[in-house]
Amino acid sequence: MIHTMSLIHDDLPAMDNDDLRRGRPTNHKVYGEANAILAGDALLTRAFEMVALRSPGVPAEQLLKVVAELSLASGAPGLVGGQVVDLECEGKDVDLETLEYIHLHKTGALLRACVLSGALIAGAGDALLDALRVYARGIGLAFQIIDDILDVTASSEVLGKTAGKDLTADKTTYPKLLGLEESRRRADALVAEAKAAIAPFATGDGSALKAAPLLALADYITSRDR
Amino acid sequence: MIHTMSLIHDDLPAMDNDDLRRGRPTNHKVYGEANAILAGDALLTRAFEMVALRSPGVPAEQLLKVVAELSLASGAPGLVGGQVVDLECEGKDVDLETLEYIHLHKTGALLRACVLSGALIAGAGDALLDALRVYARGIGLAFQIIDDILDVTASSEVLGKTAGKDLTADKTTYPKLLGLEESRRRADALVAEAKAAIAPFATGDGSALKAAPLLALADYITSRDR
Repeated sequence: MIHTMSLIHDDLPAMDNDDLRRGRPTNHKVYGEANAILAGDALLTRAFEMVALRSPGVPAEQLLKVVAELSLASGAPGLVGGQVVDLECEGKDVDLETLEYIHLHKTGALLRACVLSGALIAGAGDALLDALRVYARGIGLAFQIIDDILDVTASSEVLGKTAGKDLTADKTTYPKLLGLEESRRRADALVAEAKAAIAPFATGDGSALKAAPLLALADYITSRDR
Repeated sequence: MIHTMSLIHDDLPAMDNDDLRRGRPTNHKVYGEANAILAGDALLTRAFEMVALRSPGVPAEQLLKVVAELSLASGAPGLVGGQVVDLECEGKDVDLETLEYIHLHKTGALLRACVLSGALIAGAGDALLDALRVYARGIGLAFQIIDDILDVTASSEVLGKTAGKDLTADKTTYPKLLGLEESRRRADALVAEAKAAIAPFATGDGSALKAAPLLALADYITSRDR
């Protein structure tokens, strides 16, 4: 449903300025730049409201740990920090270390918060939390690599060029740094690492069943085609 | 201290686009629009991190109430909602009700959160919390009225921001709606109301001493000259 208010600003030049997200017009295209920025602030804040006020039956101590994890993942130590480095690196060649820094912070941190929040609410111990951090790091980076790979193969289809040759000069990606084949290998290795981290918690006493969704999610990362 | 990085964007046209805040260049003037937006996101998130991770000795249950109050005050039900209405009203004549809606949400809500957080941390009961809500509403609106009055009567030098900017034809203010004298009277009445609300809690058993800072703060609102 498209809002009918007139467009005051058409662009969000400060950020990625994309017209579409998942096939639909972006917020700033429909509602203007100011409302798009404010919607981001509102949703960020809403997350904390949901944890504090809409999580009945969970002890305050555990919810407070979720607030802590969520704030670290969203703020300067996480998503915002990654976005700042990403913007600083625009138009520059970056090395693998910087690329992973960006991904681990810009998208990986919040994915980690999602994985850990369930465990924190369930009162998980430190050993499981550490294993889940390794798991989240693995699937987070693998997700990003597959994203880059799909970006290349999609372009190839559209442009009818050999995959990997038509990457734009102003963005560093895994295929550009490592090649398509090595990127795919790296994603597979990260998913294996992620699954191995939680394997010790997936044995005996119905634990295998409990771990099944996380294991399936890890496999989905590398098998997805969009 | 001015950062030496080159200016990529000079404006934050989506918001108030001011060059100065408290006598110093605004964030977007020095660091560019993207970093200014991200700094806002980071600081908003940092507030929740401080409550969750840097408030030693306070029971989780009380801190979680602070998280709830802070999220309601900052998000769509508070600051963000007020800012959206403010932007929607730009260039339009608004009535007193709308003006107060904007102030109660855009600045009043966060001021309320400041007042309530201390009480929540101290484990205050509902009667005191209600009284403090009335207090916060009173000094919040009074602060805004005095702000509008000072914008008319004080120079830019004293204010540390561009004086008169708020009084341009496209913005509704208290002096514009009510006149200077009636605005001043209204501010005095709101401060009196604020002080009266907490008066019952300022008697006996050293409570007068405890209430003194809040009472002094209320008086400061109407006596300040910048």
